[in-house]
Order: sequence, then C-alpha cells, then structure tokens
Amino acid sequence: MKRLTILGATGSIGTQTLEVIRREQENFELVAVSANNNSNKIIDIINEFAPLYAVLTEKKAYEEVRKYCLDNNLKCKILFGMEGLNTIASLQEVDIVVTSVVGMIGLVPTLKAIQAGKDIALANKETLVVGGELVISEAKKHNIKILPVDSEHGAIFQCLQGNKKSAVSKILLTASGGPFRGKRKEDLLEVTVDEALKHPRWNMGKKISIDSATLMNKGLEVIEAHWLFDVKYDDIQVLVHPQSIIHSMVEYRDGSIIAQLGSTDMKLPIQYALNYPNREQAVADRLNFYDMENLTFEKPDMDTFTALRLSYEAGKVGGTMPAILNAANEAAVELFLGKRIKFLEIGNILEECMNKFEVQQSYVLEDLLEIDSKVKKYVKDRF
Amino acid sequence: MKRLTILGATGSIGTQTLEVIRREQENFELVAVSANNNSNKIIDIINEFAPLYAVLTEKKAYEEVRKYCLDNNLKCKILFGMEGLNTIASLQEVDIVVTSVVGMIGLVPTLKAIQAGKDIALANKETLVVGGELVISEAKKHNIKILPVDSEHGAIFQCLQGNKKSAVSKILLTASGGPFRGKRKEDLLEVTVDEALKHPRWNMGKKISIDSATLMNKGLEVIEAHWLFDVKYDDIQVLVHPQSIIHSMVEYRDGSIIAQLGSTDMKLPIQYALNYPNREQAVADRLNFYDMENLTFEKPDMDTFTALRLSYEAGKVGGTMPAILNAANEAAVELFLGKRIKFLEIGNILEECMNKFEVQQSYVLEDLLEIDSKVKKYVKDRF
Repeated sequence: MKRLTILGATGSIGTQTLEVIRREQENFELVAVSANNNSNKIIDIINEFAPLYAVLTEKKAYEEVRKYCLDNNLKCKILFGMEGLNTIASLQEVDIVVTSVVGMIGLVPTLKAIQAGKDIALANKETLVVGGELVISEAKKHNIKILPVDSEHGAIFQCLQGNKKSAVSKILLTASGGPFRGKRKEDLLEVTVDEALKHPRWNMGKKISIDSATLMNKGLEVIEAHWLFDVKYDDIQVLVHPQSIIHSMVEYRDGSIIAQLGSTDMKLPIQYALNYPNREQAVADRLNFYDMENLTFEKPDMDTFTALRLSYEAGKVGGTMPAILNAANEAAVELFLGKRIKFLEIGNILEECMNKFEVQQSYVLEDLLEIDSKVKKYVKDRF
Repeated sequence: MKRLTILGATGSIGTQTLEVIRREQENFELVAVSANNNSNKIIDIINEFAPLYAVLTEKKAYEEVRKYCLDNNLKCKILFGMEGLNTIASLQEVDIVVTSVVGMIGLVPTLKAIQAGKDIALANKETLVVGGELVISEAKKHNIKILPVDSEHGAIFQCLQGNKKSAVSKILLTASGGPFRGKRKEDLLEVTVDEALKHPRWNMGKKISIDSATLMNKGLEVIEAHWLFDVKYDDIQVLVHPQSIIHSMVEYRDGSIIAQLGSTDMKLPIQYALNYPNREQAVADRLNFYDMENLTFEKPDMDTFTALRLSYEAGKVGGTMPAILNAANEAAVELFLGKRIKFLEIGNILEECMNKFEVQQSYVLEDLLEIDSKVKKYVKDRF
C-alpha cells in the first residue's frame, strides 16, 4: 500500500491520477490533496476518498470547503495556501507526492517533499526546468526517486530500464507537432485562443495546450530530460511524430533503439509511475497494430516554432536562464489566453526576456523565486 | 574477456560474428570454429584468429584443412564430424558457444554445450523448435543463459530487460512479409528459386531466405519465442511490418509496449548477445528518423502462407509435432532449392507430414533424432 499526496488534484493530471487510484484501491491510500480554487471538486474528493488533509490556495474556496467539512462533521483538515502545500508535501504518513500543479508554483513544495524523503511522481515540468540543478542535487542527497508522470519522460524512463546509463547515446523525444504543425510564421499571424487550444492528440489543460501549440512544451521537456536523465542537450533530439504512438525512445551506443508505445492516455504514465517498479492491469485502451495508421517522422521547424530553439539555448546557457525563459513563458501564455497579445508574440517575449535579464550561473532557491517574479512583472507591465 | 566457440563459422551469421569479434579484440577470444565443407574460409579464419580447434563435417574438407595445418606447422587441432562438433561445444576453456549452424544438426552440440555449462548465443532456430522442452529444461538445470542472436528474439530479449516476466501480456513478433508479401496463392504457382531467394530487407543464407518467402521462418520464430520467453501461443502475435525498422515488441499488462528498433544488420543482435549485459559501440549504421520511410503494419495472410498457420498448430499440439514440421520443412526446402518441387508444394508437404506421422507427447533426444530422419526420408522418397 502506497500513501499519496496529490498537489493539484482537480486539474487534468490530478483527475486522472484519482481515476488510477479508484481502480487500484488495494494499492493506494490518498492522504492529502490540494487545489487552487475548485471547492466543488475538492468536496467531491473528500466525500469519495476521505483524505486526512485538503489544501486550497484561494481564500474563498478555502472558506467554502472548511465550512462544508464543519457543517458535515468531516474530519478532513483544511489548510490554506503555500504553507498548506508545504505541509501536505512533507507529511510523515505519505510515501509519494504527485506534483501535478501547473507552473513555477510547484517548485517549493516539491523541494519540501524531497527534503522530507518522499518519492516524487513529477507532472510539474517547471520544477526541473527552473530548479533542475537544485532539485536533482537534493534528490540525490535524500536518496529519493523522481518518477516522471508525463508521457514522454515516462516513456524514456521505461526505455532505460535494465540498461546502464553509460550505454545511452541519445534521447529521441517525440512531439506530436501540436495543432499548427506544418504552418509557417505567416500562417500563424491571426491564430485565435480557441485554435491554439485544439490539440490534435492529447486532451490537456489550457497552459500546456498553448505550450504545445508553440512547441514550448517540447522545449520545457528537453530541459527536463536533461536533468532527469543526465544527458547533454546535443544528445536530446526532438522528433515530430504526429501519430503520438511512439511516446519517446532511447538510442544506445550499439545503435539499438528502445521505444515505448501506447495509446494517448495520460493514465498510462501515471499508472506506471505510481506502481513502479510493478505494472498493473491496463487502465487505458490497448494499441491495435492490425488497424493502425502509418507512423511518420519529421524534423521540427525551429524557425517557425522559436520557443523550441530558445529552450535549447536557455538550457545550454544554464544557471538561471531556464527560469527566465519559463517565467517569460508563463506570463506570456497568460496574456495570450487573456487575448492581450497575439500568438507569435509569445516567442518574441521569450527572446526579449532572455536578452534582457542577467543570468546567474550559481543560485539558491531564493534567486529563482526572485528572478521568476521580476520577469513575470516585467512582461505584465509591458502589455 | 569472453572465450568463444562458433558452430557454423563460415555461414552468414558466422561470418558476421567474426566481424564483431574482429572489432572487439579486447573483449573476445576465438577458441574453436566449425564449418561443413568450406575449407578455404576455415583456413582464412585459422590464419587470422588462430583458434585452438577447427571442425569440418565433410571428409574432403577435413583432409584439406588438416594437410594445410600440417604443411604450415600450425598448432590448430583439426577435428571431424559430429564428434568434433560435440567436442568444441563443451571445451573447458570456452565461455559462450555461438550456434549458427543451419538446421536440425545444431540440436545435439547445443545440448552438449548446455550440459557443459556454457552460455549459448543461439542463432540456430531448429534447436528450440525441435527440442524446446528438452533444451529449456537442461538450460534451467545447468543455470546457463540462452542469448538469442536473431533480430526478432534479440529485440524481444532487449524489450524484456528491467521488467518482470509476470507483467508480460503479449509478444508482437514483427515480420517483413518476405519477397511475396501481398501475393495470393494463384500468383505463386510458378515462383522460381531465384525469386524466392530475393529477400527485400535482409541478406541471409539460402535456407532461411526460402523460409522467409514461405513465412515458415516466422512460424519457426513463433515456436522459438514460446520456448525462449515462456509465453503461450495465443499471446504471440505476428505483425507484418515491411520496413523491418521495429525488430519486435513486448506488450505489458498495463498496455504499455516496449519496442526495439535498429538498422537491418545482423551484427547488431550478434553484438548484443555476445556483450550482454553490456552494450559496445555501434558496428551497424544508425537509424535516421528525419529521413525515414513511413512505418506500416499488416495482418499476416495465413491462407496464402500456410506454413505460418501450420507452425502455430504444430506448436500448440506440442510433443514431437514441431520436430515433424521442421523435418518436413528442411527436406522440402532442399527439394525446392534443387528444383524438384514447386514453391507452393512446400506448404503441402508440411501439412501432409503433420497429418501422417504420429506425435509423441513426451520424448527423449533419441526420439527427436529418429522422427527427424524418418520424416526427411519420407519426403525425399516421395519426390
């Protein structure tokens, strides 16, 4: 029996994590959950799973859930804000913390969980993008496992099993290409929010859907892969594979390639991470090769999708540069979703911030938090 | 340093095994080799690698090599026939025996090697097809490893690394489809030997090329996979994949599929088997996904290629039935290569022999040798 905290239990990954737990009640116990402001969903979770703790990070939602539990005489402790997140990330009675919050906000509670000796099922890309060096060194120090929950890193993690790190020659990170694959800059001048949210293969939250449209999502994954698997940026190759059947691959020094394939269902990598090193019965549809479309591969277009090129650059510069890139992106996506900027402006903002802000090569957590808010404020003030 | 015997050093796999050894002289020492009648190639091998033993199974070739070594004052011991094969299969100073002889002749020396505690790099399909139960139980008893050397089983072996046997739900055995993929029986009435030998993807010996044209090769591989990986026949699915980029796959109970991909070069699985569990630098070309044809998948046509259907049937019947099937096939392929029968008659002979000969469910080695010669004699006498 593994005991879990889910940070971000009401979003896309959180909801699918609950589906996995619901099917494997003999394997998992839900100890704590968090949400931003979705009080109704949190109340449903409390009623179904009876966790010991729930955290809300918006005051009104916090009050609502607290009142509901008092009125109904429920024992669940309701906590508030970042302090609440840090508390449920480091509870004595928890084995694994699932970090499925979106954005930079995941960094601090993930670090707290690592320092408390919890294994991490990591769905929050920004944690490693922004704080990779810090997070990985803490993970080594506390001897905990970071189990990737997204489809690509979950695939790579599976492809590495039973092989030596020293035998890896290259990571092939697949990308669907997003909703605008094959388009050039001139085709993307008037893209609407709705068009950018329509991902061809995966059903995801809004932030990550926009990141998929710009290929920033793949860029963040490149940086994440660098830290998770200790591979040089030049040995991470992005491969556009529109069918999303192959979820990523590892090439070994003998030229042999190991790939992981599956249906496009996030429950698959979630289930693998939570049960690792075991595999349980399928929660997702199985692939049927007798009735499968052709699998194709393309080079990504980094002239049109500059976010991917800039991610490689930021990763190679290192230090606080990925934090600058990420903060610029979080702010720019928010502006785009709010219809304050155009689609192509996202890439411009990334480049502008990378040129504007000074990079520190060595940093502590506070430096990351400071540069993050400085960059976000700059982008917001500009539009 | 691993010390090797190669049974069948002058054929396609043997020659490529020597190429691997030539590149990794620091890892391997060649102790003994065998050939049927190719005295020139054996003399070349003796001059280059200085093995301690060489075996010829044809008298004239044996005499030639023996004389050459005497005349040139070479220390290599020259042995003759099956007794010679059994000797070099069980030498004290050998760690791994590569069994790359073609046909049923591989069975006895492979068993001798296992009983002498040698790991087996197995390229001889017939060993497991004919004597699967016997070979596997001896391998367990003597605690030796059977490392598959062919592309498909080598792929499956790689896909199983780092996973538990109990988590496997299915093996997906890929097949190029051979030179007659898409043809129906009526198209194959007048097929010539030359047409049947032209494999679209792999460069192989004659016997295995004909087996690829009939899909018998895939049938033998299904039975081999059953024994090697302890998987039920209903859980082995043949998947026609004409590009031969994916070399086979394993589906796990969670729906996740692990695949092995590579160039169509037999040196890749040879190198993996010999170096296992290590991986050394590539001897083969690397795949380039930016410049790759589309990958496609089809259901095999077992109505046209009856050898595949009959292999599943023979495997499921068990006992000596696969030995009957294999003997009928060896004899039929020889007749076809000698232009004594037509291409489609190969399948008819398999079916006729499977119906004609009585199956023993439990057997010892002698039973296998007896049924093998009985079936071969029957087929030869009939044409």
